[in-house]
Amino acid sequence: MRRLRVRSSSGEYAVHVGAGAWRALRQLEGYSSRFVLTESGLWKRWGRKFAREADWGPINPVLIPSGETSKSLAMAGRVAGVLLERGADRRSLLVALGGGVVGDLGGFVASTYMRGIDCVQAPTTVLAQVDSAIGGKTAVNVLAMKNLVGTFCPPKLVVSEPSVLASLPPRAFQSGLQEVIKHAILSGPAFFGFLEKRLPGLGAGHGNRLEPVIARAAQVKVDVVSRDEREAGLRRVLNLGHTYGHALEEVTGYRRFLHGEAVGWGLLLIARLAELVGCLDVHDGRRIASLILRSSHLPPIRDLRWDRIQALLPRDKKAVGGKIHWVMPESIGHVRVTPDVPADAVAAAFRDVQQGFWRE
Amino acid sequence: MRRLRVRSSSGEYAVHVGAGAWRALRQLEGYSSRFVLTESGLWKRWGRKFAREADWGPINPVLIPSGETSKSLAMAGRVAGVLLERGADRRSLLVALGGGVVGDLGGFVASTYMRGIDCVQAPTTVLAQVDSAIGGKTAVNVLAMKNLVGTFCPPKLVVSEPSVLASLPPRAFQSGLQEVIKHAILSGPAFFGFLEKRLPGLGAGHGNRLEPVIARAAQVKVDVVSRDEREAGLRRVLNLGHTYGHALEEVTGYRRFLHGEAVGWGLLLIARLAELVGCLDVHDGRRIASLILRSSHLPPIRDLRWDRIQALLPRDKKAVGGKIHWVMPESIGHVRVTPDVPADAVAAAFRDVQQGFWRE
Repeated sequence: MRRLRVRSSSGEYAVHVGAGAWRALRQLEGYSSRFVLTESGLWKRWGRKFAREADWGPINPVLIPSGETSKSLAMAGRVAGVLLERGADRRSLLVALGGGVVGDLGGFVASTYMRGIDCVQAPTTVLAQVDSAIGGKTAVNVLAMKNLVGTFCPPKLVVSEPSVLASLPPRAFQSGLQEVIKHAILSGPAFFGFLEKRLPGLGAGHGNRLEPVIARAAQVKVDVVSRDEREAGLRRVLNLGHTYGHALEEVTGYRRFLHGEAVGWGLLLIARLAELVGCLDVHDGRRIASLILRSSHLPPIRDLRWDRIQALLPRDKKAVGGKIHWVMPESIGHVRVTPDVPADAVAAAFRDVQQGFWRE
Repeated sequence: MRRLRVRSSSGEYAVHVGAGAWRALRQLEGYSSRFVLTESGLWKRWGRKFAREADWGPINPVLIPSGETSKSLAMAGRVAGVLLERGADRRSLLVALGGGVVGDLGGFVASTYMRGIDCVQAPTTVLAQVDSAIGGKTAVNVLAMKNLVGTFCPPKLVVSEPSVLASLPPRAFQSGLQEVIKHAILSGPAFFGFLEKRLPGLGAGHGNRLEPVIARAAQVKVDVVSRDEREAGLRRVLNLGHTYGHALEEVTGYRRFLHGEAVGWGLLLIARLAELVGCLDVHDGRRIASLILRSSHLPPIRDLRWDRIQALLPRDKKAVGGKIHWVMPESIGHVRVTPDVPADAVAAAFRDVQQGFWRE
């Protein structure tokens, strides 16, 4: 078990990663009532283990349909209504047991229900365990805009049990590894080299071997948010690979790519862009691309039209006054945030990667 | 012009009360874009004056229908969508120009749009100017539960122009005076005595005479929230008259009473309850009741059934673990918060006031 600690301006909290992490829920006391928000498939598979380890007696979870469409204001209202019906008050606790959708929605509901109740994140996907459950960002989608509405509200505790990853579909598991790679690029050669050895061939069922991978990737997120809880400065580096990635998701109506897959493409694209503008060493670019391509099979981008993707780039909400803040890798372990990237290089990087540049 | 200052744990901000308060908007700089959320009737009547004083050039306001039904998650999503369409980003400013509905909704949207943009409250009702626009509480209603979902998020600035009160319907104006009286009970004999002289006969059009009344009442709210921004302790005193009041609103489906009218009844009821349990002096109770009854005509409560009202009391969201925290006046200038009030006294106070106790 690894115990990490987030120290941020709005509070401190622990992140437990490892077998038995859910047992930390036993130590949470003083709540008038406790609720679990989750999805029915997940609860069927893991509910008994969760209830045993939390040791709260019988749990009647609040269930939401799986999938991105649950991340809506309408669903937030429905969950708040159920909490009200079941007697939740200001001293109740909400545990979000699930992936990014449950975590983002649950965090949003908790941060706004009666103007804020405590929330524990119990993430069950790779992406959620290493990234989205840590840092206090909550969100729902509005219209076609992902995460348009949300809050910054740190959880009380994060408990990540790697053995639940065994029930992920292989594609979802592999997709999550792209976020692990992103964190390794931010972290440096030690973690990146560790991944080069461990990641290829690593499966969702490899609980023991997964624990150090998840814990080290989570540590990267913990370090960043401990230094900058809001997005103003440092935290922006976490968007590495996300500017292109979000546009890819949006242009395909969020149907073709899992989020991590879009981030995988986003990392390949930003690595090529960084090379083109002379900011990334060719050798490091090759190492990054190689690890990404050996870890996942990414859905194709060959048929996508650049003009449509380009039009979606400035809609990124990190844009201030219409500009895009590109997070560019300079080497493994260093990135730079810059708004000044020539538009033709942005297009050329897309064309190159689309035409298989990194596969040559 | 009175310039008050809120100093709270989550930031400082100014509250300007007086003729020309909107001119303070000119000093707000550094925003990528500025938006005004308001209602069409209000904008028709006051839009030109507002635009002239803010001096921002032409303003295309974001309009919402008037009335409590606009305080919903669906409307919050719609407003966020309009802001997105019009290019609002994280450095945009939202001004909520209106009464409690616009202020609560606008504050909620601002505090969650892209996880939070700056908000200015420009309140246009008595209630909003002396109470709801100050303190950073934002909210929307879910199901039948008022303010079930919301945030604590202080505004950047509050600008209260008393001359806009001239366009309020007389009933809405008088209703707001009940919140002024509530603040005077919390404040003490000086402000209460001042009101006893000034309030009866004071009309919405009496701009100059209103300014000191509004400013002194706003100061009470400023003092309370400066000491306790969240609700844990001191701020709870602001709920004086609201426990009964909310139940009256709810039992009549929010159709019979304006909020201030329900608070007026709530104050009469809590004063009688405080007398019955021996905590309030008879002379002070009489002064409180007399000022309330001379300031407004409250819609009748004669036909309401106590058992139905009683059932709604514990649903008050200030209840922790099912209890109600009663805010009881001990004298003009002193209140006590207590969960221990005999149920039969709570019922007897209602019966007494319903049967005209204070009118004798």
